[in-house]
Amino acid sequence: MKIIEGGVTSAKGFMAAGAEAGIKYSNRMDMALVYSKVKAVVAGTFTTNVVKAAPVLWDKAIVENEEYAQAVVLNSGIANACTSEAGKKINEKMAQEVASALQISLKSVLTASTGVIGMQIPMDKVKIGVQKLVPALSDSIENGTMAAQAIMTTDTIKKECAVQFELDGKMITLGGMSKGSGMIHPNMATMLGVVTTDLKISKKMLQKAIRMDVKDSFNMISVDRDTSTNDTFLILANGLADNDEITQEGEAFDLFCQALSMVTKTLAKTMAKDGEGATKLFETTVIHAKTKEEAVILAKSVITSNLVKTAVYGNDANWGRIICALGYSGVLFDPEKVDLFIESNGVKLKLFENGMATDYSESEATKILSQEEVTALVDMKMGDKTATAWGCDLTYDYVKINGDYRS
Amino acid sequence: MKIIEGGVTSAKGFMAAGAEAGIKYSNRMDMALVYSKVKAVVAGTFTTNVVKAAPVLWDKAIVENEEYAQAVVLNSGIANACTSEAGKKINEKMAQEVASALQISLKSVLTASTGVIGMQIPMDKVKIGVQKLVPALSDSIENGTMAAQAIMTTDTIKKECAVQFELDGKMITLGGMSKGSGMIHPNMATMLGVVTTDLKISKKMLQKAIRMDVKDSFNMISVDRDTSTNDTFLILANGLADNDEITQEGEAFDLFCQALSMVTKTLAKTMAKDGEGATKLFETTVIHAKTKEEAVILAKSVITSNLVKTAVYGNDANWGRIICALGYSGVLFDPEKVDLFIESNGVKLKLFENGMATDYSESEATKILSQEEVTALVDMKMGDKTATAWGCDLTYDYVKINGDYRS
Repeated sequence: MKIIEGGVTSAKGFMAAGAEAGIKYSNRMDMALVYSKVKAVVAGTFTTNVVKAAPVLWDKAIVENEEYAQAVVLNSGIANACTSEAGKKINEKMAQEVASALQISLKSVLTASTGVIGMQIPMDKVKIGVQKLVPALSDSIENGTMAAQAIMTTDTIKKECAVQFELDGKMITLGGMSKGSGMIHPNMATMLGVVTTDLKISKKMLQKAIRMDVKDSFNMISVDRDTSTNDTFLILANGLADNDEITQEGEAFDLFCQALSMVTKTLAKTMAKDGEGATKLFETTVIHAKTKEEAVILAKSVITSNLVKTAVYGNDANWGRIICALGYSGVLFDPEKVDLFIESNGVKLKLFENGMATDYSESEATKILSQEEVTALVDMKMGDKTATAWGCDLTYDYVKINGDYRS
Repeated sequence: MKIIEGGVTSAKGFMAAGAEAGIKYSNRMDMALVYSKVKAVVAGTFTTNVVKAAPVLWDKAIVENEEYAQAVVLNSGIANACTSEAGKKINEKMAQEVASALQISLKSVLTASTGVIGMQIPMDKVKIGVQKLVPALSDSIENGTMAAQAIMTTDTIKKECAVQFELDGKMITLGGMSKGSGMIHPNMATMLGVVTTDLKISKKMLQKAIRMDVKDSFNMISVDRDTSTNDTFLILANGLADNDEITQEGEAFDLFCQALSMVTKTLAKTMAKDGEGATKLFETTVIHAKTKEEAVILAKSVITSNLVKTAVYGNDANWGRIICALGYSGVLFDPEKVDLFIESNGVKLKLFENGMATDYSESEATKILSQEEVTALVDMKMGDKTATAWGCDLTYDYVKINGDYRS
């Protein structure tokens, strides 16, 4: 299994494009299209927010009722959330535009939107976008990258990843893209993510893989504890790799899950690192927890604490805030047994042992915290369960970006 | 019932003082003492954080096992949290110093600490502090204010409040002080709060009053969702007003609860408004919720959202973020039925009605949001329950204060 260059166009039979439609902003790509030359098995997970955007409702219905899909159209100008019936109609029209242009059925077109909440998407702009996107479709790596760029909002780097592995003597490719920088605290899926693969797999097993996968990838990142109205993670499998169809658990399914995890964790970590205003990736791993559930709660409590995030920004080994965040997480434990380390680039430093500070060197701690990727390692000494969560620091720029995002 | 000037020294028989002990910082008061000339019935609530500071454990034992207490000693340099057995011993020594100087029993001295987590309190400094505090005790209003000032950390304004009402032809006085600006998301009590009263009331009823009260006052504020290791709210009632002792529910008890609520809500709102780096108080009232519990969850979800808080800072009527925060709160509702208003100084503007934006004026919205105290009013149209929560905006200064708090 290996990571290769590429993204949504890496797997056989997938094409993509990005285009300027001018939906909200000018002089930037704001629409993307992903297309499979043949129909593809579809699975997806969506936001648990009670307030669901129109495209989320549209996709949920397709994922629940249809076996196949063939295209995903995405826009990054307007979220089409809190837009009531009018928003739902516009979303369907957007799907219809794409279906007509590609000559495929309406129900095989998935939609995804991100951007400002509450505004209606102007259909004239969408038409322009679709007219540009369809003729531009190509299976080149560059076109996959253009699609990944076109879905960015406050993101500063594109998120793409592709992986290859062998199955039944066939080469299977899996590639994905995602976006997300603010309002990131996925709960079932990320802001927007699309993975394409040429694997042959049944819908049931594809849905099972995605459900299991997001628990350890997208659902373990948080930029600001705000679960979006638009979180959507879709996967399309068109079967062109011609392996024996995966229809049950077993070695082949496990191999696919590993590959999927490689793609989604890479995308998820890149999203956390590129959190709004962030200067670094802040990872927290909890080991020796009593249950997996408790390990998850503890790890997430640390990466979402504003006080921990500002200390990480200031390269300040303020371990008291980490212990405090563990303490209010809701998990019961004995503080007198906890150990805490910080780690970066293989250098590890113990800050806290059995309920008290160690005699660590502040300058060494600051050096570790000054790196681009920092890990807090918490040893609960209660059992054998582990979880890792990814977040970022809280900075002036987060306040700047969100103090005047709409204007 | 009326608010009067004053604080912890307003009620009959209570004295206070503040002093420079030099526990962590120089040239500022960092220790306070509150003392009742006669023994006082004591009640309290404390942090729900699993990690509890040494003074919290000390006070909890006294509140649970003793009928009376007579003094509270507070320091604002070091939190005495995550300090293990050594910290507990130092805390007991601090209480012993005060007990000896005041010639009262050890178990009648309550302690409270706030400041840096993990450091040990230097006993030599505490001795200096107690030697200054005891002779300085006085029942003047100024001395109450000095105590309120001495417990401040990153607070920018002192928090004091006093209320008077008549009962059985006797004048009852109730006064309090509190501190708290960061790591504020009380869960049972505030960072540090002390209320004194000359009311005659049984311990059982005093504890009942405090339990009920914090649900609508201190537990409804949040600065950063970080529940401290040191939250402590204590009330001392010395009976010197000579009313008929309150031993059961009824008119007298209700009257006292009203007065207590006046004091605690005032302190709580001042704490939220003075949140670290905050420029304004941001209140959220949820009306017509199905249950009180759901109203509380919804209101807190809005005031704790980083995205809402930054929008409030930017005077941006980004109502989508408020609807989004309601949506991920965990409460089920129909977004198509919700109305949302913003309000300040009696001017009210509807931004959102039945699932869609109204045709409101952005400039009018910005004008309302630019005030020092802003309310979001959410009408769920599901029942008849209401809750109000108080928070503040998230600003550059919050990041600044917490990016280099320890150094």
